[in-house]
Amino acid sequence: MKTYCIQDNYPEQYCHCYGCGRKNKQGLRIKSYWDGKKATAMFTPGPHHIALPGYVYGGLLASLVDCHGIGTAASTMAEIELGQEDADLRLNRYVTASLHVDYLRPTPMGVELELVGSAIVADKRKVVVVVEIFAHGKLRVKGEVVAVPMPKSME
Amino acid sequence: MKTYCIQDNYPEQYCHCYGCGRKNKQGLRIKSYWDGKKATAMFTPGPHHIALPGYVYGGLLASLVDCHGIGTAASTMAEIELGQEDADLRLNRYVTASLHVDYLRPTPMGVELELVGSAIVADKRKVVVVVEIFAHGKLRVKGEVVAVPMPKSME
Repeated sequence: MKTYCIQDNYPEQYCHCYGCGRKNKQGLRIKSYWDGKKATAMFTPGPHHIALPGYVYGGLLASLVDCHGIGTAASTMAEIELGQEDADLRLNRYVTASLHVDYLRPTPMGVELELVGSAIVADKRKVVVVVEIFAHGKLRVKGEVVAVPMPKSME
Repeated sequence: MKTYCIQDNYPEQYCHCYGCGRKNKQGLRIKSYWDGKKATAMFTPGPHHIALPGYVYGGLLASLVDCHGIGTAASTMAEIELGQEDADLRLNRYVTASLHVDYLRPTPMGVELELVGSAIVADKRKVVVVVEIFAHGKLRVKGEVVAVPMPKSME
């Protein structure tokens, strides 16, 4: 099964996002990889992404959940609507209607984090994605993103 | 009634937060002001804090909700436990147990945002804070932070 980078397949005019835009030089440049069913991303926070000494900033973790969740939504719908063959060619952009993040355990600094996202609801109106963040193989954060197609008014 | 900056009254060892730490040179340096009942903050996103062209990144807005909510929790409890006279002297640090953000309307770029936070639950175990973000006087984002006292294990 072919794996592809979701954010590399966003349209040229919509790839400036601070969290995951390939054109945002000051951004986080999160890269999510779609395997046909779920999306995975690896991200190592910088030393400045601190909350309290030793622990990663919750706002950064929320940002990772947000971008990875939106990417998972886009690929899930491409998979459903276009099938795997074309899924890497025409990803539609989604926006966040709501974001929920449970900080289950503190997330340690200096560790590569693993994100896994998969959709639990996927229809034309909205996609609900669960994102889990692991450090040292242990679940730290569980998030849920309600993603909706980018409205015409934002084009 | 005396107004003070919440983050300027965090203890020296706990003021490195990427979102609001006065010692984090690369951070956002959010400043929340407590008036005895609620906290207010003003923040102007940078041009790199973009989502789609013209609109502010949702992860940044979640970060603003997080830090402003945590600050509101700390001052709310100081007000209850110590009274207004001492509230600017000994703020305890809180951490985020969960964060919920509803993106009600797109938030335009290039505008100073106004944040207002107030507690709807406040006891020794947890503080629940509602944070609203306005742009051009219109509500854009409504968030809820569940704040808990920093556990001993994080000291």
